[in-house]
Amino acid sequence: MSLVDYLKRLLVGRPLKSSENDDQNLSRFAALALLSSDALSSVAYGTEQIVVVLVTLSAAAIWYSLPIALVVLILLASLILSYRQIIHAYPHGGGAYVVSSENLGKNAGLIAGGSLLVDYMLTVAVSVSAGAEAIASAIPSLYHHRVLISIIIVLLLMLMNLRGLRESAGLLMTPVYSFIAVITILIVVGLFKIVTGAEPMHATAQVGAVVPGISMALLLRAFSSGSSSLTGVEAISNAVPFFKKPRAKNAAGTLAMMGLILGFFFTGITFLNYWFGIVPTAEVTVLSQVGEAVFGKGIMFYILQFVTALILAVAANTGFSAFPVLAYNLAKDKFLPHRYQDRGDRLGYSNGIITLALGSIILLLIFQGSTERLIPLYSVGVFIPFTLSQTGMVLKWRKEGKHWLRKSIANIIGALISFSIVIILFVYRLVDIWPFFIIMPILIFAFYKVHTHYKNVAEQLRLSDDVKLHEYDGNTVIVLVGNVTQVNIGAINYARSIGDYVIAMHVSLEENEEKEREIRHEFREKFPDVRFSVVRSPYRSIINPVSRYVDRVSKNAKEHNYTTTILIPEFVPNKTWKRSLHNQTALRLRFRLSYRDDIIISTYNYHLKK
Amino acid sequence: MSLVDYLKRLLVGRPLKSSENDDQNLSRFAALALLSSDALSSVAYGTEQIVVVLVTLSAAAIWYSLPIALVVLILLASLILSYRQIIHAYPHGGGAYVVSSENLGKNAGLIAGGSLLVDYMLTVAVSVSAGAEAIASAIPSLYHHRVLISIIIVLLLMLMNLRGLRESAGLLMTPVYSFIAVITILIVVGLFKIVTGAEPMHATAQVGAVVPGISMALLLRAFSSGSSSLTGVEAISNAVPFFKKPRAKNAAGTLAMMGLILGFFFTGITFLNYWFGIVPTAEVTVLSQVGEAVFGKGIMFYILQFVTALILAVAANTGFSAFPVLAYNLAKDKFLPHRYQDRGDRLGYSNGIITLALGSIILLLIFQGSTERLIPLYSVGVFIPFTLSQTGMVLKWRKEGKHWLRKSIANIIGALISFSIVIILFVYRLVDIWPFFIIMPILIFAFYKVHTHYKNVAEQLRLSDDVKLHEYDGNTVIVLVGNVTQVNIGAINYARSIGDYVIAMHVSLEENEEKEREIRHEFREKFPDVRFSVVRSPYRSIINPVSRYVDRVSKNAKEHNYTTTILIPEFVPNKTWKRSLHNQTALRLRFRLSYRDDIIISTYNYHLKK
Repeated sequence: MSLVDYLKRLLVGRPLKSSENDDQNLSRFAALALLSSDALSSVAYGTEQIVVVLVTLSAAAIWYSLPIALVVLILLASLILSYRQIIHAYPHGGGAYVVSSENLGKNAGLIAGGSLLVDYMLTVAVSVSAGAEAIASAIPSLYHHRVLISIIIVLLLMLMNLRGLRESAGLLMTPVYSFIAVITILIVVGLFKIVTGAEPMHATAQVGAVVPGISMALLLRAFSSGSSSLTGVEAISNAVPFFKKPRAKNAAGTLAMMGLILGFFFTGITFLNYWFGIVPTAEVTVLSQVGEAVFGKGIMFYILQFVTALILAVAANTGFSAFPVLAYNLAKDKFLPHRYQDRGDRLGYSNGIITLALGSIILLLIFQGSTERLIPLYSVGVFIPFTLSQTGMVLKWRKEGKHWLRKSIANIIGALISFSIVIILFVYRLVDIWPFFIIMPILIFAFYKVHTHYKNVAEQLRLSDDVKLHEYDGNTVIVLVGNVTQVNIGAINYARSIGDYVIAMHVSLEENEEKEREIRHEFREKFPDVRFSVVRSPYRSIINPVSRYVDRVSKNAKEHNYTTTILIPEFVPNKTWKRSLHNQTALRLRFRLSYRDDIIISTYNYHLKK
Repeated sequence: MSLVDYLKRLLVGRPLKSSENDDQNLSRFAALALLSSDALSSVAYGTEQIVVVLVTLSAAAIWYSLPIALVVLILLASLILSYRQIIHAYPHGGGAYVVSSENLGKNAGLIAGGSLLVDYMLTVAVSVSAGAEAIASAIPSLYHHRVLISIIIVLLLMLMNLRGLRESAGLLMTPVYSFIAVITILIVVGLFKIVTGAEPMHATAQVGAVVPGISMALLLRAFSSGSSSLTGVEAISNAVPFFKKPRAKNAAGTLAMMGLILGFFFTGITFLNYWFGIVPTAEVTVLSQVGEAVFGKGIMFYILQFVTALILAVAANTGFSAFPVLAYNLAKDKFLPHRYQDRGDRLGYSNGIITLALGSIILLLIFQGSTERLIPLYSVGVFIPFTLSQTGMVLKWRKEGKHWLRKSIANIIGALISFSIVIILFVYRLVDIWPFFIIMPILIFAFYKVHTHYKNVAEQLRLSDDVKLHEYDGNTVIVLVGNVTQVNIGAINYARSIGDYVIAMHVSLEENEEKEREIRHEFREKFPDVRFSVVRSPYRSIINPVSRYVDRVSKNAKEHNYTTTILIPEFVPNKTWKRSLHNQTALRLRFRLSYRDDIIISTYNYHLKK
């Protein structure tokens, strides 16, 4: 086992058989940990996003957060119901991309798929930097290394996901279930104190109070900001194939559970915030203020801070679960390179995992960890696929016939609300989301480029009905010869075995005419039976003169109905790092010659013992 | 011409013949611009480095900068004289690495060479960030993009140097000669004002005044800081082969000219600084204060600022001239990979240029442009090679016999002063220079690793006196077959032409037993005469089962005195970017099989038309 193999085994684990796929599947309990961290972590900032917009008018406007939360809840309910239907209708997974392309056509599907691909990269970058900031606020000396910490977290998540699904679920359970426990305690204790009268109301204004200057525009903006809490809902429907059997049933159950928890948390925190009359400040988050109001500044308060930091850091993992499956689906339909279909040693789609990690690291480096301004962009990227997939479901029900209207209610409501959010974002946040209008056309263009290419290839490769094989009369072999060394013996032996006409070709740099004569003499002495041919290179490039010479030989060979083979000797050292010390020219030569017709490029590997 | 070739031609220029090398050579005037920017730019901070140390005691201690400047001048003179001798003794270039290894042994040479390799990367990083800061102080809105600007400057310098020496010299002449002109005017005008009595003395203390608390340690630290001005002196002796003929004479003349200018500037600025009683501040550099004192805040003052910024930015170019030659020398002696010996299309050592650019970009990214703290490290890396090369020269003169002591005077003085500076740095700056003690052993270790490898290879490849060729009885060819497509026709044609025994091998993934049967049937129908063999892969890896199968076939072939060839079909699309959509498996397979003995790996390139 080589060192690379050993390291890979150590980090990634032993390879799994394809048939072990079933064992690798997720229970509901594990799936909730693995797939809901993104959605659940958003309650850490969801309420705040609403209230921040409202207090730009006045603190009295905070009561509007309650009706707005209600609309968000309705949206959440319709999304959950609708995605449950999607899970049952598409048990092989897929989510927005599959649903949209099947029901609304390829373009809609690609817009949904493209948005989500970019979105998962944004999720990872945004969550990981939030996590790194949380770590840095615990250990201030790390503040200047936030970007480095973020990158390390991304790499750890990548490794964890390359190791396989179940094991990452294991690692994620603690943070996710701790967060669920702590937030539940927070809300229950808060409500208990309110009900027992221990905490009188401090709200800035009664529900229904008239707030001068309130406008629909403000409420819409507050609503669109608050709905950013719903961004992680898609993940479960994408990941149905990873569930234990019965897959669709388990996935739907997990989704319902996540929806209930998310709704309870969101309403609870929004209500507590209203009751305690908390106004957001730049330094302290709303969730942290609610915690202080309920727990006081005791141990529970610090635990709340800690689990919040943790879940933000692991929220990135949702992207790692969903991106590779989406990339797989796009690759299956020939819109992304085939390699996204390959499963790695541990049955994860390794290439997707690695691409996602690289993409988010690049985002982290470009934005140097200041990724907050990416959030509106990220919301657009979520609600466009939501709108498309819900609309797609409506069309599907309609096509399938009776009771379609009843089945469609959740989808229609979901589609309308999602669509409204997209419009609100386009109207009020254009300054943040313009890159969307640049990235999407480029992506769609790239999807189609790849697709056309694969389709063309398939067409070109199709065999005609009667295959006629061709009989050659002989074989020309050109052996590339550097100095006169041990390597030549094996190469020439092979060339003479397969070839009817063998040429040893030496490239001479103009400056060394004397050396050229010397080599010619030495070669003739050692290999008297082999034809030796010298090619001059005044530009020091070995590539150009060799390919010109090979072209000439191959033209000649073709006229005689001969094949042409060029045999390039390469050194194979006993250690991999030593490869970089050799074969640079061979590599470039092989690349150049690969564009020539009817030339077989063969490698004679000479193994170095030391 | 492909797009890549076209871009390369556009950026780098048309290829030059090796015989055009002579035309490519530098006049003294051009060489001064090309090779002295590093040394000359250091007068922008040399005086300041001395004075900053002295004023930690008191402003009255500034007068000591004059005697210290004198010692620096003596050191400069001895270095210049000594390097002139080196140039004449080693007209093929080389500087410290060549001189030390020839006279003090390989280890000394490698320490000198290794230090300088790292140093040139540091030079580039440090100078380029200084230049970027100068640009940012002119256009404050660019302040947050300093690292990006630095990287862009490095890339521009890289391109300029890939285009070739003379053209970079052309671009650099304006900044260097403008700087020389402006500093000359500064010193002449300043002295004129002093001599005519227009500027009475404002010095903080008379020369010779007793300063309480002055210590040898302080003076030594001031001296070691001031000698950082001398760091660019090595460059010319490294670059002798680039000069016009007579090379040694021209190089020596250029070096002397640079020494005179540098000495004049350094003394002049130090004296003016003393006379005007300037005390360094954090915000304004000493040179800039001297400029204000002489010119007032008029147009000349701003021109001075501008040319200073420019020369700092181009000082990095010295590294680009010297690093590739040093890497070439190390590669020629087999301590670095061969590829550093290759000249590019424009006769520059492209790989050295690119390595230097990458190394300094990595330094810029790691230190985010705050490269000032690298300066002591950088001084150690210069004065160790200085010490070694001067000592080497002394030994050389001694070996060569009579008058050796007379010839050695400059070298002995230079060696002693350089060595003292190294000691001073080790004693007073250990906290900044510790990485030196980690980097150097690693580098030396790597040099020897590479060296041993190349030496072993040369030994293994040596031919015995009587070469015996082997006659094979036949050839086995394995053709890798995916689906039944057009590609197979050509591959099988070729295989049957060279092979006496042809096997078409198909890898089947366990899950697709039905598909396997289908392919087998289809293949037999289309190619009834070819043996078809299926290899199963339960782990989805194509690599492992194929290499096991090939091993079996090759063992069998060897027993029958047959050769073994594996023919791997690859797609060659009409556009280079499409390559990434294919052949991933072929690439990995070829890598794995290259470690097998006696297997020839052949590629059948199938050209896609669309």
